[in-house]
Amino acid sequence: YGLVPQTGAAFIRKIVAEFLGTFIMVFGAAATPIVDAKYPNSETLIGKAASSGIAVAIVIFSTGHISAQVLGSFCSSLVLKFIFNPFLNGGVTVPTIGTGQAFILEFVITFILLFVVTSVSFDPKANKKLAAIAVGSTVLLNTLIAGPSTGASMNPVRTLGPALTTGNYNGIWIYFVAPILGAMFGTSAYNYLKLA
Amino acid sequence: YGLVPQTGAAFIRKIVAEFLGTFIMVFGAAATPIVDAKYPNSETLIGKAASSGIAVAIVIFSTGHISAQVLGSFCSSLVLKFIFNPFLNGGVTVPTIGTGQAFILEFVITFILLFVVTSVSFDPKANKKLAAIAVGSTVLLNTLIAGPSTGASMNPVRTLGPALTTGNYNGIWIYFVAPILGAMFGTSAYNYLKLA
Amino acid sequence: YGLVPQTGAAFIRKIVAEFLGTFIMVFGAAATPIVDAKYPNSETLIGKAASSGIAVAIVIFSTGHISAQVLGSFCSSLVLKFIFNPFLNGGVTVPTIGTGQAFILEFVITFILLFVVTSVSFDPKANKKLAAIAVGSTVLLNTLIAGPSTGASMNPVRTLGPALTTGNYNGIWIYFVAPILGAMFGTSAYNYLKLA
Amino acid sequence: YGLVPQTGAAFIRKIVAEFLGTFIMVFGAAATPIVDAKYPNSETLIGKAASSGIAVAIVIFSTGHISAQVLGSFCSSLVLKFIFNPFLNGGVTVPTIGTGQAFILEFVITFILLFVVTSVSFDPKANKKLAAIAVGSTVLLNTLIAGPSTGASMNPVRTLGPALTTGNYNGIWIYFVAPILGAMFGTSAYNYLKLA
Repeated sequence: YGLVPQTGAAFIRKIVAEFLGTFIMVFGAAATPIVDAKYPNSETLIGKAASSGIAVAIVIFSTGHISAQVLGSFCSSLVLKFIFNPFLNGGVTVPTIGTGQAFILEFVITFILLFVVTSVSFDPKANKKLAAIAVGSTVLLNTLIAGPSTGASMNPVRTLGPALTTGNYNGIWIYFVAPILGAMFGTSAYNYLKLA
Repeated sequence: YGLVPQTGAAFIRKIVAEFLGTFIMVFGAAATPIVDAKYPNSETLIGKAASSGIAVAIVIFSTGHISAQVLGSFCSSLVLKFIFNPFLNGGVTVPTIGTGQAFILEFVITFILLFVVTSVSFDPKANKKLAAIAVGSTVLLNTLIAGPSTGASMNPVRTLGPALTTGNYNGIWIYFVAPILGAMFGTSAYNYLKLA
Repeated sequence: YGLVPQTGAAFIRKIVAEFLGTFIMVFGAAATPIVDAKYPNSETLIGKAASSGIAVAIVIFSTGHISAQVLGSFCSSLVLKFIFNPFLNGGVTVPTIGTGQAFILEFVITFILLFVVTSVSFDPKANKKLAAIAVGSTVLLNTLIAGPSTGASMNPVRTLGPALTTGNYNGIWIYFVAPILGAMFGTSAYNYLKLA
Repeated sequence: YGLVPQTGAAFIRKIVAEFLGTFIMVFGAAATPIVDAKYPNSETLIGKAASSGIAVAIVIFSTGHISAQVLGSFCSSLVLKFIFNPFLNGGVTVPTIGTGQAFILEFVITFILLFVVTSVSFDPKANKKLAAIAVGSTVLLNTLIAGPSTGASMNPVRTLGPALTTGNYNGIWIYFVAPILGAMFGTSAYNYLKLA
C-alpha cells in the first residue's frame, strides 16, 4: 500500500505537466493575434504562424507529446486577458468564411497535421527532436493556410479557452467536429498506408 | 499465385500514398497565394515561400519521398476552389516576365533543387529527416527568388492542377520543359561531381 | 605549483568565452531593433524575433551554453552605438504597457524559456545541437509575444548593456526581478515534473 | 603515369564543384535584393536574409563546404542580369553608412560567422548537416543586422561578381579588407578558446 501515495504524486505531476503543456501551447498560439490587434500589423501572418508552430514544437521538445487540457487553455487565456485587455478578441478562433468552407478547411488541415504526427510517431528510427520540428512546421504551414479564414485551430481545446474568457462562441461546433473528424481520418490514412 | 491480391493491395496503397503526398504538396504551395489574393498582403512572399517549402518537407518527412501525381494535384485544386472561390487564380503559376527569362529562371531553380535532392539522396550517412529540411529550405529559397516572376513551379504537376481547375494555361509549356531539363542537368551535375 | 599559470590561462579563456558569448547574444538581439529605427519598418517583428532567437542558438552551438556577462553586454552596446548612432534607443528594453502587466509578461516568457532550457539540459539523450534549435526557437516565440510590450528581455544582462550606454533606466527593476523569478519557477517546474 | 589523366579529371571536377557552389551561393544572396527592386517590398529584409542564409546552408549540405570562386560569382551575376535586367543594382553590396562604421560592421559580422564556422568544424562530434543549419542561421542573422547598411557581404567573392557586371565599385576595398580581417580574428578567437 506504500505505492498509493506515490501513484497519487505521479498522477498530480501528470496533471501539472498537461496543464503546463497546454498553457504554453495556447499562450503561444493566442498571444500573437492579440499582440497584432494591440500593435496593428506588428506580427503579420508569418509571425502568428511561427508562434503557433514553435509553441507546439517546444511543448513536444520539453514534454514529449502534445497536451490538450481545458484548464490549461482557460488559464492561459486569463493571463493574456490580464496583460492585453481589452484586445483579447484577437486570440479567438472564429470563421470569416462560409460554414461549409470553414468545416472543410479545418478538416483538411487537421487531417494533414495528424497524418504527419502519426508518421513521425510510428517511425521506430524517428528522432523525437526532429519530430518536434516536423509537427511544428506543419502547424506553421496550416496557420499560413487557414489563419485568416478559421484561425487554424486544429484542436477543440485551443478554441475553448479563448471562447470562455471572451464569451465569443461563434461557430464553435465547427471547431469540435471538424478537427476530430480530420484527426481520425488523418491517423487512419497513415495507418492504412503503413500497417494495412 | 497467393501474392497477386497482396500485390494489388500494395499497389493501391502506393497510389493512395502518391495521391496524398501530391495533395498535401500542391495544397500547401497553392493555398497561400490564394489566401494572399483573398486577404490582400496577408502572406507576403516569405509566407508563400515558407508554405511551399514546408509542404515539401513534411511530405518527405511522412512519406519518405517527393510525390508527383496528376490526380492529387487536380483534387487539391478542386478543394481550394470550393473553399476560396473566386480567388483561385492566385494558385496558378504563370510568367510575369519574358518567355526566355521565365524559361531560364525555372531551369536554374529546378537545377538547384535537384542538385540538392540528389546530394542528400546519394549520401549514405545522410539523415533522412535532415534531408527533408534541406530540400524544403531549397524550395523556400527558390520561391523567394522566382515566386513573383514565374510562380516558382519546379514541377509540371504543381502547375497542371491549378491550370486545369482555372482554365489558365498561359505559358504552360515553359513549366513542362524547363523544370524537366533543369532536373536532368541538376541530377547529372551532382552525379558527375561525385560518381564520374 | 606548475598548475597555477595553466589554471590562470584557463580562467582567462573562460572569461573571454563568456565575453564573446554575451557580446554575440546581445549584439544580435539589440542590433535589429536599432536597424529598424534607422531604416523604418525594415525588420518587422519577425526579423527582430528571428535575430534574438538565432543569436542565442548560435552561441549555444559554438560555446555550448548561454552566457551572461555584464562587460560583454556593455561592449556590444558600445559597438552598436558607434555604428548606428544616434539610433541606439531602439536596442533598449523598456515597458510600453502597465508595470503589473509587464512584470507578468516577463515572468511568463522567462518561465517558458527556462522550462525548455531545463528540459533539454536534463535529457541524457538530447542532441546538444538540437537543444540550440529548441532554445533559439523559444526566444523567437517569446520575442513575437512580448517584443512590442516589454522588449522580451528574459535576462537582466540583456537589458543592462543598452541601458548603460543610453542612460535609459525606465522600469529597469522589472527586468531584474521578473526574469529571475520566472527562471527560478520555470526550472523548478521542470524539476518537479521529472525529478520529484 | 595512368594516374595523371585521373588527377586531371578530379581537378576539373573540383573546379566545377567550386563553380556550382559559388554560383548557388551568390545567386541565392543576390537574387532576392534584385527581386525586391523589381517587385517593390515583395521580399522585405527577412526574405533577403532567409535567402542568403539558406543559399549558404544548402551549399554546405550538398558540397560539404563553403565555396568562393570568382568565376562562379561572375556567371551567377550574368544570369541574374539576363533575367532581371535593368534591376541588377539590387544585388550589389555598397555601404549606405560611413566608411568607418561599414568597416567595423563587416568586421564584426564576419568575425561572428567565422567564430561559428570554426566551432562547428572543430567539434569532432558535430553533425555536418546541423553545421549547415548553424552556419546558414548565422548568415541570416548577419543579413538582418547589416543588410540595409553594408549589404552583409562577409565575403569578397560575394561582392566582386555583382560589382563586375554592374560596374559599381563603390567602397569595394572595405569588402576585401574587413571580411578578411574579421575572418582571421573570428577563427583565431575560437582556436584560442579551445586549443590554446
